[in-house]
Amino acid sequence: MSRFIGLVTDYGYSHYTGILRAVIKGLSLNTDIIDIEHEVPSFNPMAGAYVILVSYRWLPRSSIIVGIIDPGVGSIRRALAVEAGDYYFVGPDNGVLYPAIRSEGFKRGVSLDFNRVSKLASNMFKGKIREWRLSYTFHGRDLFGPAAALIALGYDIGDLGDEIREDEIVRLDLEKVSLSNGFYNVNVMYIDKFGNIVLTIRPDNIGLYENEAYKLVVKGVEYVVKVGRTFSDVCVGDLVIYENSFGFVEIAVNQGNAFKKLNLSIGDLVRLAPLKYSKSS
Amino acid sequence: MSRFIGLVTDYGYSHYTGILRAVIKGLSLNTDIIDIEHEVPSFNPMAGAYVILVSYRWLPRSSIIVGIIDPGVGSIRRALAVEAGDYYFVGPDNGVLYPAIRSEGFKRGVSLDFNRVSKLASNMFKGKIREWRLSYTFHGRDLFGPAAALIALGYDIGDLGDEIREDEIVRLDLEKVSLSNGFYNVNVMYIDKFGNIVLTIRPDNIGLYENEAYKLVVKGVEYVVKVGRTFSDVCVGDLVIYENSFGFVEIAVNQGNAFKKLNLSIGDLVRLAPLKYSKSS
Amino acid sequence: MSRFIGLVTDYGYSHYTGILRAVIKGLSLNTDIIDIEHEVPSFNPMAGAYVILVSYRWLPRSSIIVGIIDPGVGSIRRALAVEAGDYYFVGPDNGVLYPAIRSEGFKRGVSLDFNRVSKLASNMFKGKIREWRLSYTFHGRDLFGPAAALIALGYDIGDLGDEIREDEIVRLDLEKVSLSNGFYNVNVMYIDKFGNIVLTIRPDNIGLYENEAYKLVVKGVEYVVKVGRTFSDVCVGDLVIYENSFGFVEIAVNQGNAFKKLNLSIGDLVRLAPLKYSKSS
Repeated sequence: MSRFIGLVTDYGYSHYTGILRAVIKGLSLNTDIIDIEHEVPSFNPMAGAYVILVSYRWLPRSSIIVGIIDPGVGSIRRALAVEAGDYYFVGPDNGVLYPAIRSEGFKRGVSLDFNRVSKLASNMFKGKIREWRLSYTFHGRDLFGPAAALIALGYDIGDLGDEIREDEIVRLDLEKVSLSNGFYNVNVMYIDKFGNIVLTIRPDNIGLYENEAYKLVVKGVEYVVKVGRTFSDVCVGDLVIYENSFGFVEIAVNQGNAFKKLNLSIGDLVRLAPLKYSKSS
Repeated sequence: MSRFIGLVTDYGYSHYTGILRAVIKGLSLNTDIIDIEHEVPSFNPMAGAYVILVSYRWLPRSSIIVGIIDPGVGSIRRALAVEAGDYYFVGPDNGVLYPAIRSEGFKRGVSLDFNRVSKLASNMFKGKIREWRLSYTFHGRDLFGPAAALIALGYDIGDLGDEIREDEIVRLDLEKVSLSNGFYNVNVMYIDKFGNIVLTIRPDNIGLYENEAYKLVVKGVEYVVKVGRTFSDVCVGDLVIYENSFGFVEIAVNQGNAFKKLNLSIGDLVRLAPLKYSKSS
Repeated sequence: MSRFIGLVTDYGYSHYTGILRAVIKGLSLNTDIIDIEHEVPSFNPMAGAYVILVSYRWLPRSSIIVGIIDPGVGSIRRALAVEAGDYYFVGPDNGVLYPAIRSEGFKRGVSLDFNRVSKLASNMFKGKIREWRLSYTFHGRDLFGPAAALIALGYDIGDLGDEIREDEIVRLDLEKVSLSNGFYNVNVMYIDKFGNIVLTIRPDNIGLYENEAYKLVVKGVEYVVKVGRTFSDVCVGDLVIYENSFGFVEIAVNQGNAFKKLNLSIGDLVRLAPLKYSKSS
């Protein structure tokens, strides 16, 4: 039994999200739904994986996290329900759940079986759907939401599909860095609503706080960016690089928008090198 | 008594929506609010009617659906509370509630009377409003939210206004198609957050799955669009036409944005004709 | 003990908001969170103060309002928890809470002490955070959310920090008007999702309803705007000035977008003078 279901999707704050909420409540009346984020950039499992990884530990233990960033909906990708550490994770098997599962420690997982889920769900659904069928484009409503609600009601994940091993799950790595010509090559993992840009590194990967500033190369343009602890460590309008509140390296503009200034997209390459000016002087 | 109130508005995720939630909870503490959608295109009862029609059956039976897309707020349009089938519907009488009421089966309806609603509401409101008055621009807060909360508390809709007949309600039709020169003329009914375009037809209206592709004419430009079951039935970037998860015909771009590609707005004309190339070869 | 926490932030509907919700529920399982607004224009305490002022009385008495518009996060600005009238207010001390506190009547306030809040919070947190530390950029999660949850659980605000006097709180005035050359000089306080523009005046400040129309000067361009009670008092596409549903003066375009028409930003100057044409004729 779980009382809380946390939702992470790219459905936007649309009726897709609304119906996902409705189907969960229509199965499990006393579940408390916590909307974590519904504006994960579309079709981007890496951005979704980041949001899930940095969010799930703030939910009460035994919460179920539903993560739906699912460009392959309707194709043959597997659907997962996994118990890992103190949490459950439900969503498509495209990597979006993987970093959180690995961080929390895989215990048990199943490949969700629509027939089993829908048979259980249709028997107890309080809404008014005559025939529970699997659409080709909205598995949040038809499969993932119901599966999460059933887990919340106390069903064993083994009732919802066939067991799979951890090594069958699609992997996805959030920390990515390589070195070339004295630069760290990293990628944009997430861009938040303030335009702050999260990179695929943690401070220790590049010795962030041993340096006072970095050369930043974006699309051939070089910037010098001060290392700070928060936005206001630089002047209004200036770039700053710092450890974000989830332990990843982030670039922002104080009271401005780094995304607009640098015109980066998720997945783009960013090159970084420490500017050791204080030591050479 | 109803435990759930589902909200569909064009208020955005703004304080208008927030105050609508607050006023409901301030009257009916134990009501569970399910946000269905608050970003229905502004001033567009047809888009709202579509969202309500395809959503309400996913809510638990006896839920109250509040649908507020209300360009005529403050003018003389009627305000409705209707019992239809297993649900209640509350909102302006401009067609936004009509398709769901018709689909569910009208039982009883009233024209909401602000004096009766506000007298009941002000007596039991847990918030701190001194004088409950009907503003000219925010009937969600002043009338529709309170009316829904009162129904949730068990008040009879007859307590909230004067009875009206079904044929007094403003009608709105979501399925619209005509034929000319071998083309089906249909309209854009809704555009979702992925840019997918919902049309005013169901597959049977045009024999969707008897054909493999369609000629699509938009603003004088002709496209050939494959019929599929889901996005990934075509190459990334290609247009696809399919039955959406609510039974309407929809146009999308696989991992792209059909709205941006075709530059359509809600209400725009789209012309469709089957391309029977497989039969002519 | 409070059952309701209302949230007003500029976090957007992102995982920042999601984690804020999660941390509150992880401390106070039975708290009902009411999202008031999360899209307050970034870095703009005045817009946030407006939203809080016009919203809080619609929440049940004894609700806790968390208001986080916090461009100075991580700098030395104070963090507040205040009891005022029948409500509690929690947020940064930059003016965002002030108009509501003044309107409701200050009773008692503290400067939040992270050590005290985090010690209480970490003992009872149902999530899985090993070490509760104060980040430099996300005090909603680390301090304001937990403080609000502790108040909801019944902790005295005196347990959460050192008492401060009312006159130590940063002030912010929402009603601002001056006269020059026969014009009222006012500012844009808020722009809503319809593009309606809220000004820093109430109708009585300018005798709104004694006049039939106003000259409006924006960036050197003069418009004549009719006084109305609602949008539809003017033709579709025309500007209208009226008292909004919260008692402030607002400019809109009937079924259009005044923000796009006038290209105003929050803080911009607007000059207004009554056009007494009916009396001169």
